[in-house]
Amino acid sequence: MKTFNIIPVSIKLDKEIQSTIDLKTKPIGALGELENVACKIARIQQTLAPELRKPTIAVFAADHGIAKEGLVNPFPQEVTYQMVMNFLSGGAAINVLAKQNNIALKIIDAGVNHDFGKIEGLINAKSAMGTANYQTEKAMTNEQCEEALSRGSQIIEDIFNGGCNVVGFGEMGIGNTSSASLVMSVICQIPIEACVGKGAGANEEQLVLKGKILKQVREKYSLINHQDSLKILSTFGGFEIAQMCGGMLKAAELGMLILVDGFISSAALLVAQLMNKHVQDYCLITHHSNEQGHTRMLDFLGEKPLINLGLRLGEGTGCAVAYPIIQSACTFFNEMASFEGASVSQKSS
Amino acid sequence: MKTFNIIPVSIKLDKEIQSTIDLKTKPIGALGELENVACKIARIQQTLAPELRKPTIAVFAADHGIAKEGLVNPFPQEVTYQMVMNFLSGGAAINVLAKQNNIALKIIDAGVNHDFGKIEGLINAKSAMGTANYQTEKAMTNEQCEEALSRGSQIIEDIFNGGCNVVGFGEMGIGNTSSASLVMSVICQIPIEACVGKGAGANEEQLVLKGKILKQVREKYSLINHQDSLKILSTFGGFEIAQMCGGMLKAAELGMLILVDGFISSAALLVAQLMNKHVQDYCLITHHSNEQGHTRMLDFLGEKPLINLGLRLGEGTGCAVAYPIIQSACTFFNEMASFEGASVSQKSS
Repeated sequence: MKTFNIIPVSIKLDKEIQSTIDLKTKPIGALGELENVACKIARIQQTLAPELRKPTIAVFAADHGIAKEGLVNPFPQEVTYQMVMNFLSGGAAINVLAKQNNIALKIIDAGVNHDFGKIEGLINAKSAMGTANYQTEKAMTNEQCEEALSRGSQIIEDIFNGGCNVVGFGEMGIGNTSSASLVMSVICQIPIEACVGKGAGANEEQLVLKGKILKQVREKYSLINHQDSLKILSTFGGFEIAQMCGGMLKAAELGMLILVDGFISSAALLVAQLMNKHVQDYCLITHHSNEQGHTRMLDFLGEKPLINLGLRLGEGTGCAVAYPIIQSACTFFNEMASFEGASVSQKSS
Repeated sequence: MKTFNIIPVSIKLDKEIQSTIDLKTKPIGALGELENVACKIARIQQTLAPELRKPTIAVFAADHGIAKEGLVNPFPQEVTYQMVMNFLSGGAAINVLAKQNNIALKIIDAGVNHDFGKIEGLINAKSAMGTANYQTEKAMTNEQCEEALSRGSQIIEDIFNGGCNVVGFGEMGIGNTSSASLVMSVICQIPIEACVGKGAGANEEQLVLKGKILKQVREKYSLINHQDSLKILSTFGGFEIAQMCGGMLKAAELGMLILVDGFISSAALLVAQLMNKHVQDYCLITHHSNEQGHTRMLDFLGEKPLINLGLRLGEGTGCAVAYPIIQSACTFFNEMASFEGASVSQKSS
């Protein structure tokens, strides 16, 4: 399997970073999380002048074998390709939000069950016409899984080579909350019931059915080892999760800041950190998804998201909405005056 | 006393607003709070094409009699004027954050204990050289209080006349968390102990002293009526809170979207909603301050803030950091494709 050489982020500049923050004209700690984010970025970049270059969100789209029958998904499977078309024509939420915040978008066919032919703006990294149905067999073969990791990695390397140093991971795939829930249940060792949520909007009846089916699937693969990352990923899919996972590992290897979106994107990180725990040094969780399993997934990762706006759309929309806050962290760090420079008195101790 | 003719926001467009949101290419409700914010703005503006014009943050600065002695404030009083100078030279947090998000800034001398002389960029609305010390007498006379309300109102009217329809309320004033705590204690009928926090960064010893002094002050004015807005405001001050209060009422009268910042700005809203409850129809609470009393103050108002990043700086920084999220609400509402327009299938019911 492809390995990634991720350097743990150094803390050797921490004292200077903190001192830079503390000398700004504000009470110590008064910018709260913005200070933590600034510190994280300065650490990753090992600099006292952190910068965000060519921010990009990569949206990985793929289909899921289980979704063909419509048992776990309120929207039909063809919505995956229809939404890809919507991304390409600029009408989806992620398009307008990325545009608002000057974020470049890359749309990737990681395995959509549709023949797009030659089409402008779509990166073809198709692993297959969707995964197999894990109710009967593994979602993908080991070879497919490794290939998907590798393709995701290549896509991020290309983005990096274009001058980008901050990349968000979004996705589209009807049925992919089910994959993410199964991955979560195994890795976090949490009963599947606590990992299943409404996804794109299941009603009560649909949610009961989804829960029942995923419980059967979880039982079918009950012997799977909670640290066998490749087996977990190949069993439950999907191709978009595998490509995001490979992409995150590569981004960390390249020293990029990684923006994690919601439930699915965090599930990709769950797998990635099993493969190489240092990947998390490079990650910011941008938002708290309204999908019910996300809270415990974040607890498992020990991460606190930047915003909590009840979003549950995926596509990287949480990355896009939270991005200006990340910019604010760099802005205050780089641009604010110091007490001395501005002749402002400091507080009595 | 000056009264404001605030029209309660009409719900007559609500059905069309909601339907516009629900036909966007996303699951129902999947954009969470962004949908609520879009709905609020569309309601205020009574339009299906809401827009944010010339966003502006007004920073009201003033001094507090009690702060002269340094008993409730870890920073010395002169930091108020020093920070005003910092605002004018562009080095403070609010300067760099407002600039990042293309928000205009207005800096107002509402009553700073410093003679600025003629100085470019500062709006002179000085009511006095700071308030009196409420340990011995009311912070301001009724006339001063009414004048401050009126000046705040005029400042916002001027901003509106410049083409702005969204205004944030920030402040600077050493000692003003004490005023805000006292105002809160009376209006919300909550013991002062639960309203007092660390402000700009009191240590444990300073916090104990601050609590003790404010408890004495609260007891001195124990008979004050919890609905006597003018008396509460004039007793505890400060001029920046009074001017923000008048400004918020005027902004609502003019149909502007009001962005409330943290603890002090919310205290101004507490007084304003006593004067005219409809003001709240026009308000968005931008962030949850780290100042401990803010949680209960927001509960009293029945408001939920957009972000919670542990900020406790004031200046309008919460408004500035949250502003892009408010833009995102308008962006998705105005720019996203509908299911029909994008040929995307809807979900099975």
